[in-house]
Amino acid sequence: MESATTSKPHVVIVGAGFGGLQAAQHLGDKPVRVTVIDRTNHHLFQPLLYQVATAALSPADIAAPIRGVLGQFTNIEVILAEVAGVDVADKTVNLGDQRIAYDYLILATGSRHSYFGHDEWEKLAPGLKSLEDAVEIRRRLLMAFEYAEKITDPKARAAAMTFAIIGGGPTGVELAGAISEIARYTLARDFRHINPSDARVILIEGEPRVLAGFPEDLSASALRQLQSLGVEVRTGVHATNLTDEGLDVQGQFIPCRVKIWAAGNNASFVGKTLGVPVDRSGRVLVNDDLTIPGHPEVQVLGDLANFPHQTGEPLPGVSPVAIQQGRHAAQNVLTMLEGRKPERFWYWDKGSMATIGRNKAVADLKFVHFSGLPAWLAWLFVHVVFLVGFRNRIAVLLQWAWAYFTFNKGARLITRNFQAEQRPPA
Amino acid sequence: MESATTSKPHVVIVGAGFGGLQAAQHLGDKPVRVTVIDRTNHHLFQPLLYQVATAALSPADIAAPIRGVLGQFTNIEVILAEVAGVDVADKTVNLGDQRIAYDYLILATGSRHSYFGHDEWEKLAPGLKSLEDAVEIRRRLLMAFEYAEKITDPKARAAAMTFAIIGGGPTGVELAGAISEIARYTLARDFRHINPSDARVILIEGEPRVLAGFPEDLSASALRQLQSLGVEVRTGVHATNLTDEGLDVQGQFIPCRVKIWAAGNNASFVGKTLGVPVDRSGRVLVNDDLTIPGHPEVQVLGDLANFPHQTGEPLPGVSPVAIQQGRHAAQNVLTMLEGRKPERFWYWDKGSMATIGRNKAVADLKFVHFSGLPAWLAWLFVHVVFLVGFRNRIAVLLQWAWAYFTFNKGARLITRNFQAEQRPPA
Repeated sequence: MESATTSKPHVVIVGAGFGGLQAAQHLGDKPVRVTVIDRTNHHLFQPLLYQVATAALSPADIAAPIRGVLGQFTNIEVILAEVAGVDVADKTVNLGDQRIAYDYLILATGSRHSYFGHDEWEKLAPGLKSLEDAVEIRRRLLMAFEYAEKITDPKARAAAMTFAIIGGGPTGVELAGAISEIARYTLARDFRHINPSDARVILIEGEPRVLAGFPEDLSASALRQLQSLGVEVRTGVHATNLTDEGLDVQGQFIPCRVKIWAAGNNASFVGKTLGVPVDRSGRVLVNDDLTIPGHPEVQVLGDLANFPHQTGEPLPGVSPVAIQQGRHAAQNVLTMLEGRKPERFWYWDKGSMATIGRNKAVADLKFVHFSGLPAWLAWLFVHVVFLVGFRNRIAVLLQWAWAYFTFNKGARLITRNFQAEQRPPA
Repeated sequence: MESATTSKPHVVIVGAGFGGLQAAQHLGDKPVRVTVIDRTNHHLFQPLLYQVATAALSPADIAAPIRGVLGQFTNIEVILAEVAGVDVADKTVNLGDQRIAYDYLILATGSRHSYFGHDEWEKLAPGLKSLEDAVEIRRRLLMAFEYAEKITDPKARAAAMTFAIIGGGPTGVELAGAISEIARYTLARDFRHINPSDARVILIEGEPRVLAGFPEDLSASALRQLQSLGVEVRTGVHATNLTDEGLDVQGQFIPCRVKIWAAGNNASFVGKTLGVPVDRSGRVLVNDDLTIPGHPEVQVLGDLANFPHQTGEPLPGVSPVAIQQGRHAAQNVLTMLEGRKPERFWYWDKGSMATIGRNKAVADLKFVHFSGLPAWLAWLFVHVVFLVGFRNRIAVLLQWAWAYFTFNKGARLITRNFQAEQRPPA
């Protein structure tokens, strides 16, 4: 089974998110040898991750094994490994115990949450980037209701049933809406000593409005839709002093057991190992063709790249940017192989959407703005169409239909950490 | 929401497995107050757990939130808690930080694996009882292939692709068959340096035949079906000296990375806190009406009970026994409430089945024995019908249909332990 194509140019793609996977698929069956490196074995459909965190979907519904997705392309090899850095002079990717030489490198290692210098807040307020994050947030949400049911002290009970989401971008808005819906509908009949719909959901946003990246009318609509679900929206304020017991907002202490972080990203550290300038959040300042200064064989894209050449502002860290850049970077490799120069990247912005709850969403399609049911249907359509893999699409649709008609959520599992709580690490 | 029925007799059910859940459902809307205590928030459809371990199903497909299942009964309360013991003199269940008084107790806390005095083997060869176990086994199976793909030493590669299942009962047979199928079909195109179908699957059973609880002709058929899938079946031998590197069978060392334990159970420790005789594996020796000596208000059932009154042998630890005993125990409570004595329990044995793979199974329906496709179809029918919850049934059917026609398995996720590997425990 050893590859017979070792003499072909070797393209290494690090990261199998939207950008990396798109690049790999574009290079499938092309006259190159491709190695895809990721630290997980699955591609994650991140826009639906909040649905795993809020018990609507299972991890496997929104994740596809990378080997499965790329298995049809015999010129592509997949390695499950953590990248320690890149040596651009030596043209190698360092995997710790191994170095992989490349002729062309496409770097798409994405971002993690940024706690603005308060790394100690991460355990108090986990963010939502991986399946593990989502399962942990699900556990905390469901455990909060279990705990509230068991205790009798009214203050402690109120704190257990207060949920703070820090950050009012799409992820924060989606989480706030979904948590409020779970409390009001899904858990309605489940408890005897608490009324789950007494839960307080507080959304905290530093900017003057939620969904600050959207047009103002849609921010206003999102605010109204959140409020109709009972979410308390606090804009223009910052959360400070996070503790186990709660957090401060404008000098006022809010007792609150579950806190979720949705307030900012830091680019993966791998960008910094390239030895070229990065911005404050660690994003690589790429050329207008996605290559890095002095190394046309290295391209950086997605959340890891700062691409200001189109609008003056960096392009946003959303999946359409990563997908279009992934395709472009792959095409650039093929172009360079033909002896031509890589081409400039142009982002085609088709608009953006955020969902808030059942029949509630906003959609900015540039030429027209939608709110409520039409936006929600548009959101549903786009997300089902783009969800990777036939099986996942059907499974997700089915569960959504079931949840829609019954107000039920199927994945209400509290699972514990196998190794830490049950037995010593293997 | 406080219950207004506090003057009614209080029935406490510990454990929401097949027996406990059945008992609770039988007491729903009856003139009693019921408290169900479980240490997880979900009822687990254990007969399909091996399908989670082998990436065919997701955890949520075979688990139903206990609160959701019992939410319709306003006389039933659910507590998520670990039981520390029972004080039969005081008629209380000890939850550590809390004591729950009962008028009637139904104890159904089940069993865990038994390592026959070698508890240190648990981390080397995990068993399969909980969702956490299943996800961990899935991780080890998939990681073994990832590891084999990365390394080049032929001996280490062979060890990584050797899978030992210790115990040839239904769980061991199901695991062996499923692992062999994954290697041969599901992963066929996924790797470039290994051929997954080179994997060795070894099933080790101490008795002279696999499925020793089944009639001999079906054991022989199961053996043939396993062998047709390439499983190496070793009967009449024991695994000894488990290490990270492998295990000994009849003095011969088998290099082997992944080992799975399916060889025996120990009853939950809670039975021992009753102060009545237990057998060698910790099962409570119950009276023929499921009560314990001297305490007709306490009944014990399922894997926690040793019930020898029907056949001379203890009834097997299978779900039909637990379900029938659960219903009987609930009925006994109602009988005692009417001032009558609890009634003797009779198990109606409808037969048993084990599946081996695609179109491969054995079924012992007492009056007739099936093998192969008919047994597999019977198995499919029974498991779908009994799977708790409409949504799960449809979701599972859909995934099975998809897997059947495509040889694909949808839940091939390697997920890591959030708390231990990503951040400090919260």
